[in-house]
Amino acid sequence: MRCIATLILALTVSTVFADQTIDVADHGIRPGTDCTFAVNRLIESLADRDAVTLRFAAGQYDFYPENAVERHRAVSNHDNSLKRIAFPLFGHQNVTIDGGGSVFMFHGRISPFVLAQCTDITLKNFTIDWQRSFHDELPVIASNPDDGSFVVEVDPKRYPHTIKNGNLLSEKYDWQDRMGSNIVFDPKTNAPIFNTRDYSINFSAPYTASHAGENAVKISGRVRKSPPPVGSVLISYGTHPTSRLCPAIHLDQANQTRIQNVTIHAAGGMGVIAERCDDVELDGLVVTSNQERIVSTRADATHFIGCRGTIRLQNCLFEHMLDDGINVHGAYVKVVEYLGDRQFLCEISHFQQWGLVFSKPGDRIALLSRTTVLPFFETEVTKTRILNELRLLVTLAEVPDRMPEGPLSMENLTWYPDLVMKNNTIRENRARGALITTKGKVLLQDNAIASQMHGILIEGDNNKWYESGGVQNITITGNTFDNVGFEGGAVYPLLASPLLNETQHMGEGHFHRNIRFTDNTIRSFSGHLVRARSVTGLTISGNRLEFSKDYPAVTDFPAVDLEYCDDVTIRDNDAVGFDRTLVVQTSDDCSSVSVGPNSGLDRP
Amino acid sequence: MRCIATLILALTVSTVFADQTIDVADHGIRPGTDCTFAVNRLIESLADRDAVTLRFAAGQYDFYPENAVERHRAVSNHDNSLKRIAFPLFGHQNVTIDGGGSVFMFHGRISPFVLAQCTDITLKNFTIDWQRSFHDELPVIASNPDDGSFVVEVDPKRYPHTIKNGNLLSEKYDWQDRMGSNIVFDPKTNAPIFNTRDYSINFSAPYTASHAGENAVKISGRVRKSPPPVGSVLISYGTHPTSRLCPAIHLDQANQTRIQNVTIHAAGGMGVIAERCDDVELDGLVVTSNQERIVSTRADATHFIGCRGTIRLQNCLFEHMLDDGINVHGAYVKVVEYLGDRQFLCEISHFQQWGLVFSKPGDRIALLSRTTVLPFFETEVTKTRILNELRLLVTLAEVPDRMPEGPLSMENLTWYPDLVMKNNTIRENRARGALITTKGKVLLQDNAIASQMHGILIEGDNNKWYESGGVQNITITGNTFDNVGFEGGAVYPLLASPLLNETQHMGEGHFHRNIRFTDNTIRSFSGHLVRARSVTGLTISGNRLEFSKDYPAVTDFPAVDLEYCDDVTIRDNDAVGFDRTLVVQTSDDCSSVSVGPNSGLDRP
Repeated sequence: MRCIATLILALTVSTVFADQTIDVADHGIRPGTDCTFAVNRLIESLADRDAVTLRFAAGQYDFYPENAVERHRAVSNHDNSLKRIAFPLFGHQNVTIDGGGSVFMFHGRISPFVLAQCTDITLKNFTIDWQRSFHDELPVIASNPDDGSFVVEVDPKRYPHTIKNGNLLSEKYDWQDRMGSNIVFDPKTNAPIFNTRDYSINFSAPYTASHAGENAVKISGRVRKSPPPVGSVLISYGTHPTSRLCPAIHLDQANQTRIQNVTIHAAGGMGVIAERCDDVELDGLVVTSNQERIVSTRADATHFIGCRGTIRLQNCLFEHMLDDGINVHGAYVKVVEYLGDRQFLCEISHFQQWGLVFSKPGDRIALLSRTTVLPFFETEVTKTRILNELRLLVTLAEVPDRMPEGPLSMENLTWYPDLVMKNNTIRENRARGALITTKGKVLLQDNAIASQMHGILIEGDNNKWYESGGVQNITITGNTFDNVGFEGGAVYPLLASPLLNETQHMGEGHFHRNIRFTDNTIRSFSGHLVRARSVTGLTISGNRLEFSKDYPAVTDFPAVDLEYCDDVTIRDNDAVGFDRTLVVQTSDDCSSVSVGPNSGLDRP
Repeated sequence: MRCIATLILALTVSTVFADQTIDVADHGIRPGTDCTFAVNRLIESLADRDAVTLRFAAGQYDFYPENAVERHRAVSNHDNSLKRIAFPLFGHQNVTIDGGGSVFMFHGRISPFVLAQCTDITLKNFTIDWQRSFHDELPVIASNPDDGSFVVEVDPKRYPHTIKNGNLLSEKYDWQDRMGSNIVFDPKTNAPIFNTRDYSINFSAPYTASHAGENAVKISGRVRKSPPPVGSVLISYGTHPTSRLCPAIHLDQANQTRIQNVTIHAAGGMGVIAERCDDVELDGLVVTSNQERIVSTRADATHFIGCRGTIRLQNCLFEHMLDDGINVHGAYVKVVEYLGDRQFLCEISHFQQWGLVFSKPGDRIALLSRTTVLPFFETEVTKTRILNELRLLVTLAEVPDRMPEGPLSMENLTWYPDLVMKNNTIRENRARGALITTKGKVLLQDNAIASQMHGILIEGDNNKWYESGGVQNITITGNTFDNVGFEGGAVYPLLASPLLNETQHMGEGHFHRNIRFTDNTIRSFSGHLVRARSVTGLTISGNRLEFSKDYPAVTDFPAVDLEYCDDVTIRDNDAVGFDRTLVVQTSDDCSSVSVGPNSGLDRP
């Protein structure tokens, strides 16, 4: 009797709790067809189910926008719009999508994955690509510095174009793009060319495109210094507000998300954008171009705004993006007006954060001066009312006895994540390796970074991007930085400094604190190590700098450049192969700076 | 006892049923402030109430977008977007908004009135205007036909501009408009100049704007024939998809709506756009420019798509619009694919109808050939499933035994309204007076029409605008047409003809039927009366044509031009003052045409 009862119980438990695997082919989802409609329906049918795995047999599955589910979506750092969605997970729980090594091929303006208000979702074992990229790659086959003109080769299949009224128009899936943002890549390095900004073209100014032979177009326009050299590749990547419509994966208030063994070859925006998510794990996420292209995503490989819990990245490769490898931050929201009664009329500061869920009841927030960007009061949110994507009403538990003069902002203290990055590679991309502004605990260990701009940027600003989060506790150790900063100029493996504009100034107290940059290896044509401003608690130790001849030497800037820093230790660093002693420079308002012993690096 | 009971009953009834008037000032809504937030809240508070009047004391009330309620809105014949709304009536019943003679002044991109899923709403006694218009009015002060250049005066207050990279940019509330669609008006007539198309400028082609003295800008660009003459006014009105964002009044599935004694001076789109509405009454609606401007609305004064019941217009004045006075029609929706099981994958045909509510269960629809635009099967809709703004699944009660070859469309037969237009004036506008394609009963009586294009256009097309509705029963009587058609060419007081393209052809059977054009008075520089094609049942009688010298005579076209028409009577018409006998021309495929007796009008 008891045995049978146990068996029945076991069966029941099995039915309720065990992972149920669905072979998507049973739902008409097969390689070689437009799967959008069937995938939409299947995912919708899972809304009330738990512990389900969708399994794809290996193959190429195609997704088109025409029949796709559509929602108006605000996506931070992208262009908000009515978006068609291939995998629309809204409120789903405990779902695994296992691509089985498949390629998910997208066509036109469609968002591959949206995970909104989901919990415990795993995406794994597939590749995201687009049949036609959102950018264009145009090899330069002639270049005339005298008149600033140049000729590009236009592949009629991969980058079909039309010339109309002297404008070069890129033919996309069902729209045309004007020439817009642009950058020049070097096909030998698959990275931006050294000093690429010299070759940028102002396509907002009048220019003329004309046929210059079969599949060749001559462009006469306003170049910054010189037309791009022969052998380079001009990358054109669209104009606002239609150039960031389609991130590959959008995590919106999604908790406990895992992305494993996923490759992203392209996106009309970022690879992964996460906002107000609790715990995100990326393991084996690869963002790279496909065999036919130099460039991968239109924007950052990964980006996290207002998240919490732990963001964990390991064994990832991010390369060939047109923007940063990773960016982790919060948002400074403007106080438009204190309405009394503990109620504030607030405004999302940056237009690409419109629609951000800034706060909910129970969140701790800081009130801060918009002039010094330093907080002066902490309390709890009791109510948030959204007026529209721009504005909201925030009611606080308490307010200061006297509201200070001058412009104010808020930041949400509850939604700053810890970050663990181990064994990742970020390289050959435009812009930075990693931007980190979070008050959580941060560990970057055993990563390889070779970005065009700063390797690691710990910034925070309340005037341009409005990315909040003076750091509290960061360890950067055991990483290698390989020729970081080949945009040229004062570019560093590590820059830690808030970005202030002319109406802002340092206040009393430092913006960032507790940054340890230790035991890293830096191969460098510039000898740059660390630049820091408004940091208290900074250790730079055990790092090895090796001279590199891979780019023209940059010798105008100190190796370590400190301004308004406190409690700094610089010791046991070793600079090798440079023709000079690298310089540690400190401003007069620095305090408690200890330098030495170091090798090849010293105060002047 | 009985008396008291009656009294109590009366009091109760009074409380429940009597109209409750709210003085908006009691809710902080006062002239001279941004009323948007308070009006939003007050209207929201009425959601569950019935029989309420909001009363405004006379004054100017201002509305700004920053704090306004926001919804993604699909608006037919406009540009869909996230819209800020001043008066957001969603699901309201039995509400009257009485402006008390006030001016409601709008600023920037905000939609004044949205009535969605409402019943029994009255809007009355107010004026809608915008502080800054959506178009620009630029007086031409120099004109050089030799090189195609011209100089415009730019009022720095009303039409502030910036010149950037040779482009003239119009500074709006919080955005810049490029030069785009344009037309030339004559300030002496407050209407488009004769043959205005000759002066149109292709701002998509390269052009150069340069300063030409204080508040003067020289434009060198591609004009169609000649630059606009000195003394005319160039009207520039934006580019797609940002030029039709803000209609003044949007009725969306709103039943029993009355608009009385309302004036509309401007709109970033149409004055009134109504879709899937049952019974709309416009009495004393005035669409006209304000004292400072020549032009009123960016698009049609009024427009009705897929409505039913009765549309009643009386005592209205529509003038100075940049598009038609009124347009009443349904929509042809494409059948993309028959999926079997009585289910059709359908697609909204025109991008400015995306999001249209085409059908709901219970609606009768016709299936029709997209080639002949003639219906072949009628049945009922049993289910509609929206995939996105473009596509929907429609399930029908029955399907033909054999689905015909060739492309198919559907039209919704349930949602065609009757139309009564009496005692209205439409004049001095770009485009047509009235477009009418509805299967309902139509009476146009005692109206005065003086439009630039056709006076009354009974069209229907399934290839360009996809406006459905071959007419069944139209009476046009007692109206005056004053110099209609001053765009020049083959323009008529009445044109009745489906618009076919080169892939379409006439089928068996006529598209329109039963049109009576009787006892109208026509003052005309061309002697044009009626052009008709594919009409059965056409009476043209008792009309008086008087020669007008107000525009250059047009003598190239017949007065009455008939093609593939049947059952036509042309009698008792009187043409006076022309230097020739006006011609009735009929094609060989006409049948049963009776001409005469007429005076000054005959077959050749």
